[in-house]
Amino acid sequence: MSLADYLYTVDQLPSRLIEAAVDQIATLPGIGRRTALRLALSLLRRDPEKVHQLADSIKEMSDGVKPCEKCHNLTEDIVCSICNSTGRDSQTICVVEDIRDLLAIENLGLYKGVYHVLGGVVSPMDGVGPSDLFVQSLVDRVQNSSEKTEVIFALPATMEGETTSFYLYKKLQSLNVEVTSLARGVAVGESLQYADEATLSRSIENRTIYSAGQ
Amino acid sequence: MSLADYLYTVDQLPSRLIEAAVDQIATLPGIGRRTALRLALSLLRRDPEKVHQLADSIKEMSDGVKPCEKCHNLTEDIVCSICNSTGRDSQTICVVEDIRDLLAIENLGLYKGVYHVLGGVVSPMDGVGPSDLFVQSLVDRVQNSSEKTEVIFALPATMEGETTSFYLYKKLQSLNVEVTSLARGVAVGESLQYADEATLSRSIENRTIYSAGQ
Repeated sequence: MSLADYLYTVDQLPSRLIEAAVDQIATLPGIGRRTALRLALSLLRRDPEKVHQLADSIKEMSDGVKPCEKCHNLTEDIVCSICNSTGRDSQTICVVEDIRDLLAIENLGLYKGVYHVLGGVVSPMDGVGPSDLFVQSLVDRVQNSSEKTEVIFALPATMEGETTSFYLYKKLQSLNVEVTSLARGVAVGESLQYADEATLSRSIENRTIYSAGQ
Repeated sequence: MSLADYLYTVDQLPSRLIEAAVDQIATLPGIGRRTALRLALSLLRRDPEKVHQLADSIKEMSDGVKPCEKCHNLTEDIVCSICNSTGRDSQTICVVEDIRDLLAIENLGLYKGVYHVLGGVVSPMDGVGPSDLFVQSLVDRVQNSSEKTEVIFALPATMEGETTSFYLYKKLQSLNVEVTSLARGVAVGESLQYADEATLSRSIENRTIYSAGQ
């Protein structure tokens, strides 16, 4: 048994308060009991006032932030700043798995449409079905729109992502909508020899007209 | 610039409350802004009540736990349960860098002495001098003892650890004390060919009388 194993099974922390905090911190994703203990001890080296600041900021976030009623992005209001913005094209809806994907696209600064955060992808292995995702609200948004809508699938290029895209496509195809999907291909800066076969075949199938300087 | 870089520089989080929480979480050691954002989003998926529990457990720990007046272990009382225990030999003091080392030894369940947590090791590169450590309180403990004390150096086998041991030895040598140090040698289960030279030389120098079955 290594030191790490001992620490992992540590049940004799010098105080119940530390134990309780370690248990709580260890509920965070990707944080085991060892890391939780390291974080707890680092907090104990701080001024209690600073620790209260940290804890309060987490509480305030949890109390104050909720999903946007339209797109399920996070917001402090009823509708998020993107949905509320007059400068954005509400007829173009980019469907993402999760808010981090939204942030990644948003940080490019080039997309001027709106979003729809699904809250996951269909994954039978993890017990996630379409009913666990915000699918119906997407259909409603498209249906309630008077003009033609473009829906961009910006879901992960995995089996689950592709399944979800296909499911959404079936739901949307009869409506007044154009469905597009992010281009799949060799990443910018990547050598062809390191690209996987599926990506390389897609990049040949979906080749684009060459334009110099692009 | 990769997606990761974008996320790292993300400054357009959808809410100031999320921003504040991410900033606070990112002050934890080993947690960057990307991980902090991931943790914040995972907290936002929870019941606010559960999030309050987590935040409160951290506050309660910070408010209720303080260093033991004797050995600087952590405790909810004035003196920790180890120093307070009548079943332990207070004439044997094991000097450790940090409370995690104390826990590792404590979990072996074989050490029956007490501890002294230094709070670090001498490291000029990091600006840590002997005055930043609980050195004087160790000297006082030894000095105030009526019987002969054994002080065990259980400090890391690094340059800093060895320097600290040497410094402590100089401070203690004139007192009524026997100074020992953890055995250095080839780790149990380790192949000789993978042991580093310093460890292997030490293990030859400090060879022990063979006793079958040990």
